[in-house]
Amino acid sequence: MRIAISTGGGDAPGLNAVIRAAVLSAVNRGWEVLGVKRGYAGLLGEDEVVFLTKESVRGIAHLGGTILRTTNRGSPFKYPVKQPDGSFVEVDRSDELMENARQLGIDAMISIGGDGSLAIAKQLCDKGMKIVSVPKTIDNDVAGTITTFGFDTAVNTAIEAIDKLHTTAESHDRVIVMEVMGRDAGFIALHAGVAGTADVILVPEIPYDVAKVCEKIQARDRAGRHFSIVVVAEGAFPRGGESSTLGPSMPGQARRVGGVAEVIAAEIQQRTGKETRSLVLGHLQRGGMPTGYDRLLATRFGGAAIRAIAEEKWGEMVALQSPHIVTVRIEDVLAEEKRVEPSHDVVLTARAMGISFGD
Amino acid sequence: MRIAISTGGGDAPGLNAVIRAAVLSAVNRGWEVLGVKRGYAGLLGEDEVVFLTKESVRGIAHLGGTILRTTNRGSPFKYPVKQPDGSFVEVDRSDELMENARQLGIDAMISIGGDGSLAIAKQLCDKGMKIVSVPKTIDNDVAGTITTFGFDTAVNTAIEAIDKLHTTAESHDRVIVMEVMGRDAGFIALHAGVAGTADVILVPEIPYDVAKVCEKIQARDRAGRHFSIVVVAEGAFPRGGESSTLGPSMPGQARRVGGVAEVIAAEIQQRTGKETRSLVLGHLQRGGMPTGYDRLLATRFGGAAIRAIAEEKWGEMVALQSPHIVTVRIEDVLAEEKRVEPSHDVVLTARAMGISFGD
Amino acid sequence: MRIAISTGGGDAPGLNAVIRAAVLSAVNRGWEVLGVKRGYAGLLGEDEVVFLTKESVRGIAHLGGTILRTTNRGSPFKYPVKQPDGSFVEVDRSDELMENARQLGIDAMISIGGDGSLAIAKQLCDKGMKIVSVPKTIDNDVAGTITTFGFDTAVNTAIEAIDKLHTTAESHDRVIVMEVMGRDAGFIALHAGVAGTADVILVPEIPYDVAKVCEKIQARDRAGRHFSIVVVAEGAFPRGGESSTLGPSMPGQARRVGGVAEVIAAEIQQRTGKETRSLVLGHLQRGGMPTGYDRLLATRFGGAAIRAIAEEKWGEMVALQSPHIVTVRIEDVLAEEKRVEPSHDVVLTARAMGISFGD
Amino acid sequence: MRIAISTGGGDAPGLNAVIRAAVLSAVNRGWEVLGVKRGYAGLLGEDEVVFLTKESVRGIAHLGGTILRTTNRGSPFKYPVKQPDGSFVEVDRSDELMENARQLGIDAMISIGGDGSLAIAKQLCDKGMKIVSVPKTIDNDVAGTITTFGFDTAVNTAIEAIDKLHTTAESHDRVIVMEVMGRDAGFIALHAGVAGTADVILVPEIPYDVAKVCEKIQARDRAGRHFSIVVVAEGAFPRGGESSTLGPSMPGQARRVGGVAEVIAAEIQQRTGKETRSLVLGHLQRGGMPTGYDRLLATRFGGAAIRAIAEEKWGEMVALQSPHIVTVRIEDVLAEEKRVEPSHDVVLTARAMGISFGD
Repeated sequence: MRIAISTGGGDAPGLNAVIRAAVLSAVNRGWEVLGVKRGYAGLLGEDEVVFLTKESVRGIAHLGGTILRTTNRGSPFKYPVKQPDGSFVEVDRSDELMENARQLGIDAMISIGGDGSLAIAKQLCDKGMKIVSVPKTIDNDVAGTITTFGFDTAVNTAIEAIDKLHTTAESHDRVIVMEVMGRDAGFIALHAGVAGTADVILVPEIPYDVAKVCEKIQARDRAGRHFSIVVVAEGAFPRGGESSTLGPSMPGQARRVGGVAEVIAAEIQQRTGKETRSLVLGHLQRGGMPTGYDRLLATRFGGAAIRAIAEEKWGEMVALQSPHIVTVRIEDVLAEEKRVEPSHDVVLTARAMGISFGD
Repeated sequence: MRIAISTGGGDAPGLNAVIRAAVLSAVNRGWEVLGVKRGYAGLLGEDEVVFLTKESVRGIAHLGGTILRTTNRGSPFKYPVKQPDGSFVEVDRSDELMENARQLGIDAMISIGGDGSLAIAKQLCDKGMKIVSVPKTIDNDVAGTITTFGFDTAVNTAIEAIDKLHTTAESHDRVIVMEVMGRDAGFIALHAGVAGTADVILVPEIPYDVAKVCEKIQARDRAGRHFSIVVVAEGAFPRGGESSTLGPSMPGQARRVGGVAEVIAAEIQQRTGKETRSLVLGHLQRGGMPTGYDRLLATRFGGAAIRAIAEEKWGEMVALQSPHIVTVRIEDVLAEEKRVEPSHDVVLTARAMGISFGD
Repeated sequence: MRIAISTGGGDAPGLNAVIRAAVLSAVNRGWEVLGVKRGYAGLLGEDEVVFLTKESVRGIAHLGGTILRTTNRGSPFKYPVKQPDGSFVEVDRSDELMENARQLGIDAMISIGGDGSLAIAKQLCDKGMKIVSVPKTIDNDVAGTITTFGFDTAVNTAIEAIDKLHTTAESHDRVIVMEVMGRDAGFIALHAGVAGTADVILVPEIPYDVAKVCEKIQARDRAGRHFSIVVVAEGAFPRGGESSTLGPSMPGQARRVGGVAEVIAAEIQQRTGKETRSLVLGHLQRGGMPTGYDRLLATRFGGAAIRAIAEEKWGEMVALQSPHIVTVRIEDVLAEEKRVEPSHDVVLTARAMGISFGD
Repeated sequence: MRIAISTGGGDAPGLNAVIRAAVLSAVNRGWEVLGVKRGYAGLLGEDEVVFLTKESVRGIAHLGGTILRTTNRGSPFKYPVKQPDGSFVEVDRSDELMENARQLGIDAMISIGGDGSLAIAKQLCDKGMKIVSVPKTIDNDVAGTITTFGFDTAVNTAIEAIDKLHTTAESHDRVIVMEVMGRDAGFIALHAGVAGTADVILVPEIPYDVAKVCEKIQARDRAGRHFSIVVVAEGAFPRGGESSTLGPSMPGQARRVGGVAEVIAAEIQQRTGKETRSLVLGHLQRGGMPTGYDRLLATRFGGAAIRAIAEEKWGEMVALQSPHIVTVRIEDVLAEEKRVEPSHDVVLTARAMGISFGD
């Protein structure tokens, strides 16, 4: 038995722990494991395919990043190929990938990735590849699983940042707007905001007005709390209206990505007259040592992926349905959107405690 | 409406976040909140009862400990009363407690605690007190909820310790035996051991032989890995037998508490000849700043407790059944034992990766 | 004896530990301590003056921020006073301050702050106020002392950030440019860059060319290291020249503040074709819990300030001249500029290890 | 030019950063570097000698432990050799070591270690080996240098532990006695105790009575502070006398090592009647990721050691004399004892703040 592992999409803390658990579990069964470098690039002759042994995965469980490296680009079905004039054309190279996998003697694959990687896995599965997926998303926006590794680390990084900003905001009577990841799903902003005791939380799923945000800040001011912390997801643009120069935040509408904190901070300062600063956490959320929660979950996923292969669960994704790891069909995962539910208890508790969502 | 909050049993990171969420949620409803100091001592005239306002809970979400202090002693139904000769006699003071609560105008209570506190809550409920419970246990041994606050922090503390011991064990070719909390349930040892990449994990739920532990250590030695990390739950004593001088570890049998690491380390050193050290994490697992996970979960529990009171769910406990907070009947919680299930996926994955359970 | 304490300038981790040590030391001598809120605003009727007791400083040693709050504005000698037309005029309110201090019975003051606060302290001293200063600067740019509290915390925050960016840069074959504090002095960039194993470090004290930075990045690429980490101080703008569209970085010349990372990242991406991202650490460096080093140093400064008052060392600043705390004359401190010395061993070692300074 | 590096004595965070800086600095000069495994064992045929390249030291700066491993045993001048009857006899194997070094073409050596290693380095130097030392001690007890790497990490680990114990001590009205490293020198106890706001600090350099410790605890109790934190160095045994059943703590007298916390805790509980717990931090202080301070200092030492070799400073030790790295003669270092000075400002400030030293 010879299996291969690839990691696709953005970096997430815990990737190495998945790889380590899968490799150790497989090698102890007597299987061979190949590592495909940089997404599927290794299977298209654009990067390496290497043997993964017990030695390869020694001491990596607590390291961020991925020993296989990763990439955000290049579905094998729409692979960007450079033309003589320098432009790129998307080419279907999936047959080539299948053929290379066959020649390497790959019996089955573990694909670790988010929605994009899951869609590719489904397509490869339909072409006959025996594939099991492991969900990976910083944003917690993959359906079918309670959560995935990397999210807890990102939330903790964001909470630590809020804790740091809190003390300096309070010392200086400032408003600080902190932008966290989350283009479509506001889970990081919500969880970090509530745990970090932010005063305002802005997520893509709940349309908001900056005017309401300012009301909250001013109400705090009147109550003697001269500082405020606003946490905003990168995809949470304010609702349009006379009082705002900004575009819409309704789901499905075009929006700029990044920079929302700066825009909102400027508007808050103008409206309230309070000194307001913004900060973008950015890639700090993707890197570094995974938390204990993520190390354990990633390890469980890696082990479960090997069991799923042994049980020939092709086209399925390992998933956490607490307290158990299960498998679900990739197509079911892709059919569903996972977003912050405005009626979820975290939102209700936040509102009850006086946190504003700007609505 | 006037409610009261008490915290009983051992300290757990997140207690203050529960109190804060409950107080803010209640005060925003227009309710008054009393804090009962040191378990129920405040309602027996042995400590204070204080008003909890927004100001009382400012800036405490990330602090360990409990502003209400706590105690492991003193069920009001079996309250230890000192006699003239210095000895203690257990007295039922529950009527006095009910009367004091009535005089203070307490309409409902939130009791935060573990199995012991839950049993008391059930008894008080039977006497007519309107009570809602919030589960608290470092060990994760309260049934009815996927987990409770404090456990994630304790696991992370244990993982950090393993990480530290790992480097020094490897530098010195040593065996290190680290003892974590868990008298009856081995969840901390299991989760920290797997996430921290221990080589041997010993839990009360899986009987083991030190001889088998030594075999694992020696197999590693032969493979060029001259160090080993053993994580042992405080209640995991080795199975008796010819090869051991130690007592039984079977559930239900008498056992010493504490010191298991030292005992096992001595036996490992004697059997293998390898330099072996032991370390007891002890109270480091109970204290300090809660992790993001625990801060959020504790906050959710605090908010949910207030909603449960509003819905008059007397005799129920808030619980995490991911992704939702629900309530369950206290008597159902008490009827069930929550332990590490030897067939659970975490154990299976650990075994598949080569971790030994000494069996 | 009645003394007062004020904190001026930007926030720095350790301020509360200074205040706590000074208050406890003073109260144990039988002195009274007043806290002046928001720089000198409390002594100008624009904010409060409060009594500081043992109770006031309980449990604050490890908290970031300052219980006295602070401000970057408002020398009492050039106090911004709002005019009827909305504009501000700077007014000398120092006589008013002296009079208020006299009426409050203040015998001596501790002024905690950076270069700006030290200059004010000197002026007040010249007017007859009995003052002792405690140096405070995130940037480590106050002369006369080996270092000050807050700097170690800022460096550790920056190192943690580099560690996080490292893994994601490596996974994605990216260049990441991280901007840290340091308008005039590059100590944070230098110390964090060397300890965090950055590949390029850019400081205001060493003029550099982006072309040289790109050479380093490309040399790494050729050696199979497809990622690079560049740490840049906020005041380190590249040297002008044909190869650069950017302004000068020579000391004394006008320069923009902030945004240097973004500018450099754009130029690196354009020149090397490598995917390049930037990140501004910003206020994360000012906030949060001080490190052990800073907690100890701040405490020592607080204790030393009280001894300096007892010894009537007016016009002096407490300072670390390892292993001792000494006092130095404020005017001597102000006469000297503390900057990264290009011949210092940290720079030499960095160069020897292959780190580029872009020169 | 071919140099060799060895690490001796106990593990200390930062060892790998020293090795990395030395290797990169040397290789960039065109030198070859050998790594001697396990102290000098590698030069006595009992372990390996390996080539250290840039690749060997990649990504190790932030890892605890040492890639060369280490040992507490075995001066080559008194090497323990096992006899046929199982006993050990100490044999002078230094000629063999010199000869092996000659055959390996070693031109100069870097010896990283504490007092024991320094003494061996001096002896080897006297035999003609060209040697430069780098000081290493968790306890900060090597003279001639303001501090060494590893100490700051150990102090931070101890402070974190105190922070954790603080919250649980306060919640439960307990006394907690925490034992830290320091057989002869109490620097860890002193620095961690002051920064962590302990109530009592016990060090080997200041003789104390448990009766005085109990007075402090009881005075706090009367003032409404029902908990206390006692930090004790492992070598700080209480002064004998009528009031104590324990042995002497006077320097130079025989004393047990380890277990002092347990002994003191028992006595405190007996005398005060307060619930008292003890905890031994042990090896947690030696392991794990070095702090930023230690990463920088270790890197500076590694770079300076290479410069010292280039300048042929045989028999010297690199040292921190802030803000510079210098070299000092090993024999001068060995001639001096570095201990906590009872008149040092840290002690004075601690006393002024009300911390008891039990004297």
